[in-house]
Amino acid sequence: MKNESTKRIKDSQVEMTEIVLPQDTNSLGTIFGGRVMQWMDIGAAICGFRHCRTAVVTASVDRLTFLVPLKIGHIVSVRASVNYTAKTSMEIGVRVDSEEPLTGKKQHCSSAYFTFVAVNEAGKPIVVPSVVPVTAEEKRRFEAAKKRRQERLTMREHETRQSRK
Amino acid sequence: MKNESTKRIKDSQVEMTEIVLPQDTNSLGTIFGGRVMQWMDIGAAICGFRHCRTAVVTASVDRLTFLVPLKIGHIVSVRASVNYTAKTSMEIGVRVDSEEPLTGKKQHCSSAYFTFVAVNEAGKPIVVPSVVPVTAEEKRRFEAAKKRRQERLTMREHETRQSRK
Amino acid sequence: MKNESTKRIKDSQVEMTEIVLPQDTNSLGTIFGGRVMQWMDIGAAICGFRHCRTAVVTASVDRLTFLVPLKIGHIVSVRASVNYTAKTSMEIGVRVDSEEPLTGKKQHCSSAYFTFVAVNEAGKPIVVPSVVPVTAEEKRRFEAAKKRRQERLTMREHETRQSRK
Amino acid sequence: MKNESTKRIKDSQVEMTEIVLPQDTNSLGTIFGGRVMQWMDIGAAICGFRHCRTAVVTASVDRLTFLVPLKIGHIVSVRASVNYTAKTSMEIGVRVDSEEPLTGKKQHCSSAYFTFVAVNEAGKPIVVPSVVPVTAEEKRRFEAAKKRRQERLTMREHETRQSRK
Amino acid sequence: MKNESTKRIKDSQVEMTEIVLPQDTNSLGTIFGGRVMQWMDIGAAICGFRHCRTAVVTASVDRLTFLVPLKIGHIVSVRASVNYTAKTSMEIGVRVDSEEPLTGKKQHCSSAYFTFVAVNEAGKPIVVPSVVPVTAEEKRRFEAAKKRRQERLTMREHETRQSRK
Amino acid sequence: MKNESTKRIKDSQVEMTEIVLPQDTNSLGTIFGGRVMQWMDIGAAICGFRHCRTAVVTASVDRLTFLVPLKIGHIVSVRASVNYTAKTSMEIGVRVDSEEPLTGKKQHCSSAYFTFVAVNEAGKPIVVPSVVPVTAEEKRRFEAAKKRRQERLTMREHETRQSRK
Repeated sequence: MKNESTKRIKDSQVEMTEIVLPQDTNSLGTIFGGRVMQWMDIGAAICGFRHCRTAVVTASVDRLTFLVPLKIGHIVSVRASVNYTAKTSMEIGVRVDSEEPLTGKKQHCSSAYFTFVAVNEAGKPIVVPSVVPVTAEEKRRFEAAKKRRQERLTMREHETRQSRK
Repeated sequence: MKNESTKRIKDSQVEMTEIVLPQDTNSLGTIFGGRVMQWMDIGAAICGFRHCRTAVVTASVDRLTFLVPLKIGHIVSVRASVNYTAKTSMEIGVRVDSEEPLTGKKQHCSSAYFTFVAVNEAGKPIVVPSVVPVTAEEKRRFEAAKKRRQERLTMREHETRQSRK
Repeated sequence: MKNESTKRIKDSQVEMTEIVLPQDTNSLGTIFGGRVMQWMDIGAAICGFRHCRTAVVTASVDRLTFLVPLKIGHIVSVRASVNYTAKTSMEIGVRVDSEEPLTGKKQHCSSAYFTFVAVNEAGKPIVVPSVVPVTAEEKRRFEAAKKRRQERLTMREHETRQSRK
Repeated sequence: MKNESTKRIKDSQVEMTEIVLPQDTNSLGTIFGGRVMQWMDIGAAICGFRHCRTAVVTASVDRLTFLVPLKIGHIVSVRASVNYTAKTSMEIGVRVDSEEPLTGKKQHCSSAYFTFVAVNEAGKPIVVPSVVPVTAEEKRRFEAAKKRRQERLTMREHETRQSRK
Repeated sequence: MKNESTKRIKDSQVEMTEIVLPQDTNSLGTIFGGRVMQWMDIGAAICGFRHCRTAVVTASVDRLTFLVPLKIGHIVSVRASVNYTAKTSMEIGVRVDSEEPLTGKKQHCSSAYFTFVAVNEAGKPIVVPSVVPVTAEEKRRFEAAKKRRQERLTMREHETRQSRK
Repeated sequence: MKNESTKRIKDSQVEMTEIVLPQDTNSLGTIFGGRVMQWMDIGAAICGFRHCRTAVVTASVDRLTFLVPLKIGHIVSVRASVNYTAKTSMEIGVRVDSEEPLTGKKQHCSSAYFTFVAVNEAGKPIVVPSVVPVTAEEKRRFEAAKKRRQERLTMREHETRQSRK
């Protein structure tokens, strides 16, 4: 099972635009964190579909942060981009920005790292095409994602050892 | 009430990306036309917000066509762009394309012309910034929209006369 | 493929009643145009099902107008009726009225002409039963719809010629 | 606080038409009972609004029965009618019928008796206009509802006594 | 078709926790009765699944009462428990309580008795495991449900006789 | 601003029960990760409300993992519990388990650590009541959460230094 194909990062990038509706908000007119997460997951999944052209499933989410609250009526931009690819998984970075509709003022609202796994019809992991980072920004993200992946693996191994004791 | 401000068409363009979920489809796995219209209206409204930076309301929709059906799992791209501006209204063109997730095959699914009116807090029409078409494509769309607007006005006048008899 | 069956217009007419809920509205308590379109499309589709007793799909929408805004809490009446039938398609007129719940005041909110195509299980167009207009109102609508259809065909032919140049 | 106004039953009757969408059904393609109840409650509430022209709230539901299951794609008819009025409450009968879209076959699916209370802005009960049943059917329903109301009051009194022991 | 298995009531009890969102409420910030019914039906259905480990369908609902209104932002607790089992059906009691999020004040909001029928894949009724009430409370509920069932059967027989005349 | 109040962990614990509906799933009958995240966020928010009795907002989510996919019809249990409290924030652990409705087989599906901040009406952070872990399990979670918080702070400081260069 060798993966010979490579794809460009920009070919799978996603840009979603949404508007915060009353149904997305709590009684104070502020959006639920869970609603933002749902948009981020869909954006990341579309990015994964485009990169792999197979089914993909969310395996984990890390360092999801909410910086400023999205309010009712705000225009929401969700952007997703493949940061790194391992054998059967990939890290997809997602960033959410808000745009105040009457002033056009933009703010960075939320970011997260999603790990998706490519699966076949039986739900078993399959090889993902690898990415070759081209721009300086892409290279920086690739290295940072590689490091995060290493940390996750170390942490998991550590936790497994702990639970064996 | 003179409108001295002008804005560029590209500054208010919208690109939405959605995925067709089971809840959007009928029992045959094909999307409801009404769901597509809802996305188109939201995309056009965001475009109108960006152009006017005031509240905008849908006044009419013309020549909405469905060419090929969107199916469950398809990635949907909705693009909206100001075609033409009159004194208190503007025509926004909306185009919907589908992308088959496993093959990447793209198809033009639907198009429509939305007329939005800018309104103040009391719901009364207010002046919209005018657009100056720059590219050849923008100029072609501007002229076609102007002609459609003339046809709508003629038609309405005709209908009013008819109903007076 | 000859269509020998005819059906009465009143046998497929639809009356839907809805109420505008917070989830249907924007931050000003006014309904989204797209939500009204969704109701109109469902009403028209039910009318088409009743007329054809086969699957039907939305092909186009014309002259959709929004006259007065629906507000939160309003009772909504959506009525759909077959105006005209061609070989494999039919025009269905849809009208939306609002009813202010505390006063009972009614207003005409929106109207549109939907063209639906009857399809078989493979999604291919099939013959629709023809309608024979009976009342004066039905006859007036039939003739007006026939004229609109002719205009659409002329317009499409014109556009096709233009794009060939 | 005497209620001098009376209203006709037919002036507040409601007819809703819906279609069973995938989102309304369980994994077997059959509708959830709770979804049908939601439609019934909205239909009954609109009927109550029309009768009272004040806010109304659901106080109780009795003898709600499901006779045959609604399936995906079915056209649903929900009809609501005031059966009986007491001082500040009224019984509204709701009946749900299904229509198989391809054959037109209709079946009685569900019925229930809803009791609604008219309330002022502070949520306090206020007098409802009384109904005068006119047709034989209206008179039969009026008497049956009156008897049900008596049974409910007797039952409640009995339960209160029991719980005092 | 003899039912030899018995199950404990506490093994199928359900506790759901929800929060009242803007989309669940009317324009006064009070929840729709139909939304509460939907939660009750899902809670009761999960309870029925757990008791029978087969598909179950709602057959009827009785004495559903709304005591105090749920408001936007309230935490909602829905609890469901098997009260009684007959051959192919069972009565499931459902109780809804609200919790005011800032004060923690709790109130009993709604109760109802749901009758569910266990069905096989063809939708035909099948035997449900019987319950043996253990605690005093379970025994009291069992006897009360048995009596309610007897009343329902008597009422139905009476109605059938009436309609034969 | 000193926080003298303490609360018990068990007093704010939340148990939600949901069922996976068709609208929650993709075209393969598997739930979207984003839908699970939404449930987790609501469960954690209710837990935060109960602990603080003030408004709370999601600040970040870490180590969210999906172990086995939830499928259509599965009963879902979401449990949330305060792990640790800092001055104006708290870590809430959320765990999701699935229950296969026909067999009762349970599986651990997902876990995550949510950080919530208590806010006043102006959206400014306010002191949260502290928890005193009592059981061995509570103490273990408290220490692990404290360590995770330390790691997050270190990481953020590091990232800030990096971006200054």
